Amino acid sequence: MVGKFISFEGPEGAGKTSVLKVLIPRLQAQYGPQLLVTREPGGTDNPVAEAIRDLVLSPDYPTMDIRTEALLYAASRREHIQKTIKPALVANKIVLSDRFVDSSIAYQGAGRGIGFEAVRKLNDFVLEGFLPDCTIYFDIRPEVGLARIKAHRQNEINRLDLDPIEFHQRVSAGYHQLAKQDPKRIIIIDAEQPIEQVIEDAWQVVNRILKMEE
Amino acid sequence: MVGKFISFEGPEGAGKTSVLKVLIPRLQAQYGPQLLVTREPGGTDNPVAEAIRDLVLSPDYPTMDIRTEALLYAASRREHIQKTIKPALVANKIVLSDRFVDSSIAYQGAGRGIGFEAVRKLNDFVLEGFLPDCTIYFDIRPEVGLARIKAHRQNEINRLDLDPIEFHQRVSAGYHQLAKQDPKRIIIIDAEQPIEQVIEDAWQVVNRILKMEE
Ligand SMILES: Nc1ncnc2c1ncn2[C@@H]1O[C@H](COP(=O)(O)OP(=O)(O)OP(=O)(O)O)[C@@H](O)[C@H]1O
Ligand SMILES: Nc1ncnc2c1ncn2[C@@H]1O[C@H](COP(=O)(O)OP(=O)(O)OP(=O)(O)O)[C@@H](O)[C@H]1O
Ligand SMILES: [Mg+2]
Ligand SMILES: [Mg+2]
Repeated sequence: MVGKFISFEGPEGAGKTSVLKVLIPRLQAQYGPQLLVTREPGGTDNPVAEAIRDLVLSPDYPTMDIRTEALLYAASRREHIQKTIKPALVANKIVLSDRFVDSSIAYQGAGRGIGFEAVRKLNDFVLEGFLPDCTIYFDIRPEVGLARIKAHRQNEINRLDLDPIEFHQRVSAGYHQLAKQDPKRIIIIDAEQPIEQVIEDAWQVVNRILKMEE
Repeated sequence: MVGKFISFEGPEGAGKTSVLKVLIPRLQAQYGPQLLVTREPGGTDNPVAEAIRDLVLSPDYPTMDIRTEALLYAASRREHIQKTIKPALVANKIVLSDRFVDSSIAYQGAGRGIGFEAVRKLNDFVLEGFLPDCTIYFDIRPEVGLARIKAHRQNEINRLDLDPIEFHQRVSAGYHQLAKQDPKRIIIIDAEQPIEQVIEDAWQVVNRILKMEE
């Protein structure tokens, strides 16, 4: 495979989506249709992955078992890799994904308490060794990220806000454990900085990765 | 848990569903509402498992990746266990399931070629040690089972008939490997006998299991 695959990871309110919104037009100007932007759960132009996303996020099933949830995220990811990401990389594209496998390990494994290793093993079945060329980790204390979201969605009911702060702290610890175990792939940027600086830091990393083989 | 859980396994056309149709009224006469009959993929009164079943069997997605398929079967099974089977066993019910975990290992693992051990490990995540009290394996040469189905569904297009005989032979070998590894749980009955005899053999096994703790 010849393209490049970069995932964006971090807790709620870290700024992943906001930063991507700025980077995308910049990269589009440079790379045009060579750029593919996608996100998890689900995936761009991937009907199976999106159907699974709809199922796992559906309010019709509020009591879904946490391992069922992890298996559905895994199924959605498998389809995302096989039908969207890998074909794009074969076609020499640059793929940016808002969340990927690390989210499952941090949220379901560490956060929900299934266990870091159990969810990692489950995802070994999904990945068969496939991983992003680079993962940009938006590092932020969970309470700071949550405060950002609350400031902007005052009247919205957010499912994630219903979880105790301890949940978000376990997620954060899970992410740090991942970053420690794979420092070559996972690049940490300080997401508590002003957004302009976070954008700049992410832009530097993306450019370094894209320039590597050119 | 105090109830009993018996699964029915075997290749296409082995007679699982036909035999269950005869055993169910007999058991209902004896046990009434204490009997719960269910099947996989999906599960009785289980909206999440059924929604996943619909997705995995949908003709809208003919090119689903085989690991995605295995993950969806696993997700459906997890919900089936947690929301249908275990609660029934806690309520002292007798649960009969037309197919269960062995089908995944035989069909996806051995048949489709993901690998017996890989699909078994995936299902360890699902089962967390939970297994049927007894599994009745309907032993039949795959060509004999397929011939039965063809004789009765001459005008029907059957997805499974599209698979080569080698696929069905790998499934059969997978089942035999399972039976060899777990002879205490998996009871083999000769499904090539006349249906009356197969019913009788299955009835004996079911009764032995149900009488064990009474
Ligand atoms: N560096 C920053 N400083 C202050 N506010 C920020 C910063 N980055 C993002 N925000 C604001 O925080 C809120 C959440 O940002 P955003 O939705 O991009 O986060 P996210 O990482 O995508 O979160 P989620 O995981 O919930 O999708 C937005 O209102 C955004 O404007
Ligand atoms: N012992 C038997 N001898 C001859 N025919 C049989 C016997 N058992 C079942 N059949 C016939 O074989 C066909 C398939 O049986 P059945 O549907 O019960 O199999 P099954 O194991 O449930 O298959 P599937 O896995 O496809 O659901 C039916 O038409 C049934 O009448
Ligand atoms: Mg976002
Ligand atoms: Mg049947």
